[in-house]
Amino acid sequence: MHRITMLGTGLIGTFYTMVLHGDRSRDRVGVVYSRQEAHAREFARKWEVPVSTTSLEEAIRHPETDVVVIGLPNDQHAEAATMAARAGKAVLCTKPLARTAAEAKQMLDAVEKRGVFHGYLEDLVYTPKTLKALESVRKGRLGRILWTRSRETHPGPHSDWFWNKEVSGGGAIIDMGCHCIEIGRNFIGKDIRPLEVMCWADTQVHPIDAEDSAVGLVRYAGGAIGQFEVSWTFRGGMDLRDEVSGTEGTIWLNHWLRTGFETFTTSERSDYVAEKSESEQGWLFPVGDEPGALGYRDMFRDMLDSLDSGKPPMESFYDGYVVNSIMDAAYRSAAAKRWEPVELAQWRGTSDTSEAKELEPFDDDHFLIKREKMPDGTTKMILKEKAGGRIVERVGE
Amino acid sequence: MHRITMLGTGLIGTFYTMVLHGDRSRDRVGVVYSRQEAHAREFARKWEVPVSTTSLEEAIRHPETDVVVIGLPNDQHAEAATMAARAGKAVLCTKPLARTAAEAKQMLDAVEKRGVFHGYLEDLVYTPKTLKALESVRKGRLGRILWTRSRETHPGPHSDWFWNKEVSGGGAIIDMGCHCIEIGRNFIGKDIRPLEVMCWADTQVHPIDAEDSAVGLVRYAGGAIGQFEVSWTFRGGMDLRDEVSGTEGTIWLNHWLRTGFETFTTSERSDYVAEKSESEQGWLFPVGDEPGALGYRDMFRDMLDSLDSGKPPMESFYDGYVVNSIMDAAYRSAAAKRWEPVELAQWRGTSDTSEAKELEPFDDDHFLIKREKMPDGTTKMILKEKAGGRIVERVGE
Amino acid sequence: MHRITMLGTGLIGTFYTMVLHGDRSRDRVGVVYSRQEAHAREFARKWEVPVSTTSLEEAIRHPETDVVVIGLPNDQHAEAATMAARAGKAVLCTKPLARTAAEAKQMLDAVEKRGVFHGYLEDLVYTPKTLKALESVRKGRLGRILWTRSRETHPGPHSDWFWNKEVSGGGAIIDMGCHCIEIGRNFIGKDIRPLEVMCWADTQVHPIDAEDSAVGLVRYAGGAIGQFEVSWTFRGGMDLRDEVSGTEGTIWLNHWLRTGFETFTTSERSDYVAEKSESEQGWLFPVGDEPGALGYRDMFRDMLDSLDSGKPPMESFYDGYVVNSIMDAAYRSAAAKRWEPVELAQWRGTSDTSEAKELEPFDDDHFLIKREKMPDGTTKMILKEKAGGRIVERVGE
Amino acid sequence: MHRITMLGTGLIGTFYTMVLHGDRSRDRVGVVYSRQEAHAREFARKWEVPVSTTSLEEAIRHPETDVVVIGLPNDQHAEAATMAARAGKAVLCTKPLARTAAEAKQMLDAVEKRGVFHGYLEDLVYTPKTLKALESVRKGRLGRILWTRSRETHPGPHSDWFWNKEVSGGGAIIDMGCHCIEIGRNFIGKDIRPLEVMCWADTQVHPIDAEDSAVGLVRYAGGAIGQFEVSWTFRGGMDLRDEVSGTEGTIWLNHWLRTGFETFTTSERSDYVAEKSESEQGWLFPVGDEPGALGYRDMFRDMLDSLDSGKPPMESFYDGYVVNSIMDAAYRSAAAKRWEPVELAQWRGTSDTSEAKELEPFDDDHFLIKREKMPDGTTKMILKEKAGGRIVERVGE
Repeated sequence: MHRITMLGTGLIGTFYTMVLHGDRSRDRVGVVYSRQEAHAREFARKWEVPVSTTSLEEAIRHPETDVVVIGLPNDQHAEAATMAARAGKAVLCTKPLARTAAEAKQMLDAVEKRGVFHGYLEDLVYTPKTLKALESVRKGRLGRILWTRSRETHPGPHSDWFWNKEVSGGGAIIDMGCHCIEIGRNFIGKDIRPLEVMCWADTQVHPIDAEDSAVGLVRYAGGAIGQFEVSWTFRGGMDLRDEVSGTEGTIWLNHWLRTGFETFTTSERSDYVAEKSESEQGWLFPVGDEPGALGYRDMFRDMLDSLDSGKPPMESFYDGYVVNSIMDAAYRSAAAKRWEPVELAQWRGTSDTSEAKELEPFDDDHFLIKREKMPDGTTKMILKEKAGGRIVERVGE
Repeated sequence: MHRITMLGTGLIGTFYTMVLHGDRSRDRVGVVYSRQEAHAREFARKWEVPVSTTSLEEAIRHPETDVVVIGLPNDQHAEAATMAARAGKAVLCTKPLARTAAEAKQMLDAVEKRGVFHGYLEDLVYTPKTLKALESVRKGRLGRILWTRSRETHPGPHSDWFWNKEVSGGGAIIDMGCHCIEIGRNFIGKDIRPLEVMCWADTQVHPIDAEDSAVGLVRYAGGAIGQFEVSWTFRGGMDLRDEVSGTEGTIWLNHWLRTGFETFTTSERSDYVAEKSESEQGWLFPVGDEPGALGYRDMFRDMLDSLDSGKPPMESFYDGYVVNSIMDAAYRSAAAKRWEPVELAQWRGTSDTSEAKELEPFDDDHFLIKREKMPDGTTKMILKEKAGGRIVERVGE
Repeated sequence: MHRITMLGTGLIGTFYTMVLHGDRSRDRVGVVYSRQEAHAREFARKWEVPVSTTSLEEAIRHPETDVVVIGLPNDQHAEAATMAARAGKAVLCTKPLARTAAEAKQMLDAVEKRGVFHGYLEDLVYTPKTLKALESVRKGRLGRILWTRSRETHPGPHSDWFWNKEVSGGGAIIDMGCHCIEIGRNFIGKDIRPLEVMCWADTQVHPIDAEDSAVGLVRYAGGAIGQFEVSWTFRGGMDLRDEVSGTEGTIWLNHWLRTGFETFTTSERSDYVAEKSESEQGWLFPVGDEPGALGYRDMFRDMLDSLDSGKPPMESFYDGYVVNSIMDAAYRSAAAKRWEPVELAQWRGTSDTSEAKELEPFDDDHFLIKREKMPDGTTKMILKEKAGGRIVERVGE
Repeated sequence: MHRITMLGTGLIGTFYTMVLHGDRSRDRVGVVYSRQEAHAREFARKWEVPVSTTSLEEAIRHPETDVVVIGLPNDQHAEAATMAARAGKAVLCTKPLARTAAEAKQMLDAVEKRGVFHGYLEDLVYTPKTLKALESVRKGRLGRILWTRSRETHPGPHSDWFWNKEVSGGGAIIDMGCHCIEIGRNFIGKDIRPLEVMCWADTQVHPIDAEDSAVGLVRYAGGAIGQFEVSWTFRGGMDLRDEVSGTEGTIWLNHWLRTGFETFTTSERSDYVAEKSESEQGWLFPVGDEPGALGYRDMFRDMLDSLDSGKPPMESFYDGYVVNSIMDAAYRSAAAKRWEPVELAQWRGTSDTSEAKELEPFDDDHFLIKREKMPDGTTKMILKEKAGGRIVERVGE
């Protein structure tokens, strides 16, 4: 079992603690920190945490704590992570790892220099659906991955600091693009180098400085594309979907608005429907197990089991650093209006960048391009002549 | 933490142990029992259970065990439960509680006489979706519940004993009707008396004695109907859906085949898709978190938390007994081809059987029957005159 | 081309005329009849119908009319159909054909005696989805049909006369059960005799004499079950779904609330969403092509093409009579609380009532009961020994 | 009624004729042309067309023809359209209008010079779902449109000429991007100027010269984005979806793979499932009314009704020209790897390019940024101070 220091008492600290304490768990949050004493005390009371404090140092260095969880606004990640590394504690940091790749690199260096266990709390790659989908991709059930789309949009975050660019480091890209980018990277292959990014970003609706909408394409070695779509302007709740296309298959995941729970009510009795839900009457789409559907349960299981067994977790600070590097390129691209390279001080994956394309033979003289059943029951084949390359069609039964 | 004796090493024992040991749990299965030594030993090895035995008595009476989980074929429930009660151990029994109401009543009497904690492992009322839906119903968001439909169909169970009527006590009704009936009862209200049952049952496909298909209606005091549909002949996987209709709202739950995970593959590389899946190519619908979606996680949490806090769990042996009584009436009805009363030696709910119907006033002279927006933009109202009862329509903006 | 007399100017007459005049059609409504002169005149103006009248006889006997469409309240069908038959005109009658089987039989006799073309306007078996599904069933893609469920529920009809039992002949069963019964009959096979009916019916919500909710099972020769579910108490719009189970496959049709059109709006600008929609804000589910989705287009195409080519249409008065006979049995069953026989003065289908069950051989000594892929990758088979009938399981790769 | 000359006998000519002749239509194809005599003759026989010819000139100039429909490969559109214009016939041309904007401009000039009726057969903006969605947008139910996504992907076209860049003018962009671009343009507003395009395109799988995959963003005056996704590498059938986001609402359309028709079969009896379906066993998703779902019916209705009433149709050659101009910019962008301007020789819409952003007042001192219901039942508001612009949060009931 682990004794955990929770840094931060906002929605994220609450969700984390709910999961860490949940389901007959043997782990416990032993110390909670907030800058504001009232928040720390109230949180400690509610979650039965023995110690609450407004001292970051005290929280991290508490002698019973062996794991520090950073659930603070983005501008406080680096300081907390560095302090935890110096204290020799395992450190788990919420997403995004930092506001910029440079800041992320400092954090990575800090934990690696001290040799402490480090985990990047990228929950959305840990949803049970995503884990099963990734396993399916690893088994080759989709063939070579060509394209992914990861989308997270909702009407905007629930705390003021997200909307403040100095604190958060950016808008919808920093807040949610980090999720979408890492989901795409997991499906395409974390060993495959992200090369360049094309991104559109705009402030379409809200009276803020940062972008409230963005769409980006990350191009990987080998030609696969990881597309991300983020917005704080979406109406209808939280849209959390992934799509994966491979040469042999397709995956569609819907994590939030369409998960097999549909309800209609005319009642005006108030109810909590789901995170970011925008309505309480009419057709509603609650989520059965919110922490599970967001990946929190499997994320902490992986983190703490990995810590117990001395293995690196699925998502480490290095992954967080790669994501920050991709986001940096996205911001540069949005400004320059052209593709921008992903700058990685250190690349730990494969350096193979060849594109593998398979030609499917049809007969001695032709490659098969495609085969389709027509309405009249016949099958049409599109073929390419091996000699000369002419494209022809043939009809069969 | 609890030390658990697991009786049975089949699919159900496996699922239960996976969940009891899962997600950083502090509970552990300490003893496993199977009639067949090889099964007991293999199970113990796989799940790191310290003790395995082929002696039921030894398994139950093991000094470190404080909770006995019955995951045995139906004909062995009564003996095991009685033995556990005598040993003063908490006892959790898989569904159905027994083969008949009479057998269930013996088990209920046994645990109540010894005063041991008893839980009925009706997992499907514990799915996160169902728990949230029940909460919504309790809050009045659906108004008065009028009708529920609970459906469980698949191509048939995975172990031979299910197909043997002597061992199981019946066919699809005993195997799955117990789930559907208790789901309906939870939505309609466990305090409301089930009065009578109309049931059709037939052996439509399989070469067996028991029914492989059934549809039944349970009528409750107040007039609500709990409809159940079960079959071992369904093609396409496992169809696990609930529908709830109330005077003010509707709930639709899909637990298995459409939960927001869709994949297509042409790959012939083999893969496990989901329980009872019938295909491995083409469009497939895996389930992200199978044990969660089946309610196992929240069920054991409720059982063990209730045991810790000295409260009765959500589902007790009494509930199992009511379900068996309803199933008895279903079998009688299928044979007699008419509605049959539910015979309960003991009814612990309310004895109020009045039907509450609300008349919605429209104006001084009329009740409102309904209101509908028409294609031309007008609103049509159907009204009933308070004096005389004539039904009229009126068109408004 | 045809010149049509439209009897009735309500929602049904409007929908029918919209379709008859729609999509570059060569047919035209030439005469419109309503008891109320203002209605007839307004309808004629709106739909550019040259002649309007309040005389039923004049409408039917108009010299340019060759087809009479009955879109009147149920109690006026028999008179209108008989008059049209006597006038030697082709007659198409909306659903239900009549209020009782006896009345339907009179209508059938009237049209057959005069030898006029007669069509039963059971639109819901004509939806493009249903037609394609029926073709698939006829091709054997589902094997032997075992069970169908057809459901039509909404918050109640839009005209006063539906709610008046004298005029309509009943409640939700007469209004919508007729659809569901005929859908089931088409899937199971119109040549197969409906034998008996078990039906529950109740007035759960509305202050009316007729039933506002009912569930029924129609048992056919050979053992197939056609289940119908109807209600005027449903909340959330119009629920129009069919399910078909066969020995080799499954069909699920959703005609209304989930057809691939989803929209969310916070706007309070008013809009027509879809027939029977109950809300205008939040998540809404419009239907793209309402007349098409309800089968009107393909129904009139079949009727008029059949008339042109001298063939009987897919649905004739005889079908309407069978449906009324099944509904009569449903009402008797609801009252008697037991299965009631379907009484048909004349059965024109097959008289074969044998139940065909296939035993699938596994090897020389066993029949195969089922096969399932287990989570550990093995395949489990349930077998029945040919000699003795013992059920055993076997595990393979 | 109209007498139509059909140019082309491929899948598109077949679909067009099926619809033109369908559903009791008064219009008829009177002449059919194919370069290959056998094709022309066979088509004429099958569709009961009186005249077939291999002479383009003869087909167009046939004295009974008043409408010419161009269903030929892309490289033959310009010649045919020009010839039809010279002959003074109404001319309807399949999509894309041309291979390039320059070619499209010639065609536009040709029809406008002769003053003939011209329609651009962009069927996918005419699906009943799309028409209803567009009406909803026009009524302001979604507020200001911010972003659209239109996606068409499948495993590749069914005729050889699509794969030949000389004939077709390009790959997936020319084939399907034209649809997606015009869908986005309709939702954002055809009066609003498309300014620039960013596009990624690649040949990921097939052994061809043209792109088999592309994703592009079209930026419009006012800041709205029309995103298109096209691919000939998708596995699982034809993915045809649109998404629309506005300041007050959302629309999701699924035209093909999830329209409320789901079937599972183990039968090996062959069947046509739907256009571009890739499997015949397992879970399948047929489309009820394929021509309707693709917009063909409403498209020809609009074209011929507009011709009859002397009004321009919803989609004209000018629209086709705009789409070609956007596609030209997309190809330039894919090559240059940066945003490229849309070059329009003539812009017929509004020249207003202002971005309208609304600030929602909360109280005298604050604008409202967003409002969200939290799990604990409170409501959190994010506000912006009117003076100074600081962002703060406030919690209410």
